[in-house]
Amino acid sequence: MNRITQLFGIKYPIIQGGMIWCSGWELASSVSNSGGLGLIGAASMYPEVLRDHILKCQKATENPFGVNLPLLYRDLDQHIQIIIEMGVKIVFTSAGSPKKYTPILKENGIKVVHVVSNLKFAKKSEEAGVDAIVCEGFEAGGHNGKEEITSMCLIPNVSENVHIPVIAAGGIGIGKAMLAAFSLGAEGVQIGSRFVASQECSAHPNFKDAVVESKEGDTMLSLKKLTAVRLLNNNFYQKVLEAENRGDSIEELRELLGRGRSKKGMFEGDLKEGELEIGQVSSMINEIKPVKAIIDEIISDFEIEKERISKIEF
Amino acid sequence: MNRITQLFGIKYPIIQGGMIWCSGWELASSVSNSGGLGLIGAASMYPEVLRDHILKCQKATENPFGVNLPLLYRDLDQHIQIIIEMGVKIVFTSAGSPKKYTPILKENGIKVVHVVSNLKFAKKSEEAGVDAIVCEGFEAGGHNGKEEITSMCLIPNVSENVHIPVIAAGGIGIGKAMLAAFSLGAEGVQIGSRFVASQECSAHPNFKDAVVESKEGDTMLSLKKLTAVRLLNNNFYQKVLEAENRGDSIEELRELLGRGRSKKGMFEGDLKEGELEIGQVSSMINEIKPVKAIIDEIISDFEIEKERISKIEF
Repeated sequence: MNRITQLFGIKYPIIQGGMIWCSGWELASSVSNSGGLGLIGAASMYPEVLRDHILKCQKATENPFGVNLPLLYRDLDQHIQIIIEMGVKIVFTSAGSPKKYTPILKENGIKVVHVVSNLKFAKKSEEAGVDAIVCEGFEAGGHNGKEEITSMCLIPNVSENVHIPVIAAGGIGIGKAMLAAFSLGAEGVQIGSRFVASQECSAHPNFKDAVVESKEGDTMLSLKKLTAVRLLNNNFYQKVLEAENRGDSIEELRELLGRGRSKKGMFEGDLKEGELEIGQVSSMINEIKPVKAIIDEIISDFEIEKERISKIEF
Repeated sequence: MNRITQLFGIKYPIIQGGMIWCSGWELASSVSNSGGLGLIGAASMYPEVLRDHILKCQKATENPFGVNLPLLYRDLDQHIQIIIEMGVKIVFTSAGSPKKYTPILKENGIKVVHVVSNLKFAKKSEEAGVDAIVCEGFEAGGHNGKEEITSMCLIPNVSENVHIPVIAAGGIGIGKAMLAAFSLGAEGVQIGSRFVASQECSAHPNFKDAVVESKEGDTMLSLKKLTAVRLLNNNFYQKVLEAENRGDSIEELRELLGRGRSKKGMFEGDLKEGELEIGQVSSMINEIKPVKAIIDEIISDFEIEKERISKIEF
């Protein structure tokens, strides 16, 4: 037991990151049923879709689960209303300031965790009253911080400078990396990419296969002039790279990005023109497995590596 | 004892990275006298300067030390001749292919380690016959890989796919990070930035002070169109950023860089126009200390954190 397992009432301090188009009720409930904390990713859901996923998740698991809620989303107020109405007890917020919404959620008995990518926002989140922080390093998939701070540097710097518990995210897909995160001061890990390659993930099979087949160097933090996002190398990514190298403006990049690209890539399986968000760790993911097998393997490896480390003597 | 301490005949598996303008005989011998492995950084030295530093290092320590040798350096053949003549027993090579020079060095009884930033070159180095590999993550200072693979992702991927021991570099300045590196599969750590903030480092005091005063987000991987290098934010860095954002060509960037900027910054202390190479971990370095105090602190913290980790139970 540690502060993270106690906070959420879960067996293992493994949180499945909320990911657009990838984390519906099936993935979230499977993670919760396997001893971790599953999160429904609200960002790709209309309000009524979110309601439906919460309902199905409640039916599929008796264990705690949560919702991931980007605070810049257009349907935010409706999402919050549904979360409260439906009795969701855990919310992970991201992409925005937690100052306004943390009190509203906490007044309704909800545990609140905010995702940050630097110490400055970790401290602001603590002041806003959140219960824990996710520290997301540069290697993480999807949207990410402009300062490009990696997990190795971010986790110790934040955990030594806040009082609330830190959940490490970015580069974590195996037991060794979970042990490294704990060595650096984390009390939990948030895992995204590894769960994309699960049977229960709602991503298109083409995207899952692309993750399994990806090699080192195949992801890159892109679109830094708009909102930094780690993408898998494909035709669309190459167009972005060319545009950035020739110094395209924010407006030109926005036009190139267009609308609906992430749905096209991750949900509809267009590997050529879609936006494929995945972490650097994808190069180490070689198989699509059931969620329970992934979690069991991570915990088992964590224990084996912990035994190995505990025997080091100088 | 592990494979790294055995390979070099040292007490602690801590290697001080060879750094231009920062790592002369005084730093290297102090690290070796404190139980680690000191490296003289040959890249900023004319052949006769290197000879002088080796001689002084031999007089200052009876413990093993080595030389870091970038393989693309113009005086390379003279450097290698001096290293062999002077009886140096350990060479860390970087920035180039180890295929040609590893056999020459090994025939002369020298242990050879090559620095890489991805698995592909780790495997090529192993084939070339090196004794160990340094895996340098994206967070490391100075010249770095184009693929931007962080230590969290690089160390496990390489250590699981080569047979020779792996030394982790990038983001490691404290005991917690050393423990994380070992968790990920490393058997040694190479530390650069933390030793810049040592009394024995040959860097200009202005640069050491700038490292101590730096905050998170103050370093960035730059000049990717030329040779990727992690720089500390200053006037010169801002000019590079502007040039990159407007899509300047390789030739324009080369002209902006000019010659002698790293000496101007790190050795002569021009914090405005100089090139200041330092790792992301600099934001966590808050004091200039003697080398022995740095190494003792890292080892002591490593032990404390190892005890903490060994007690985790799920």
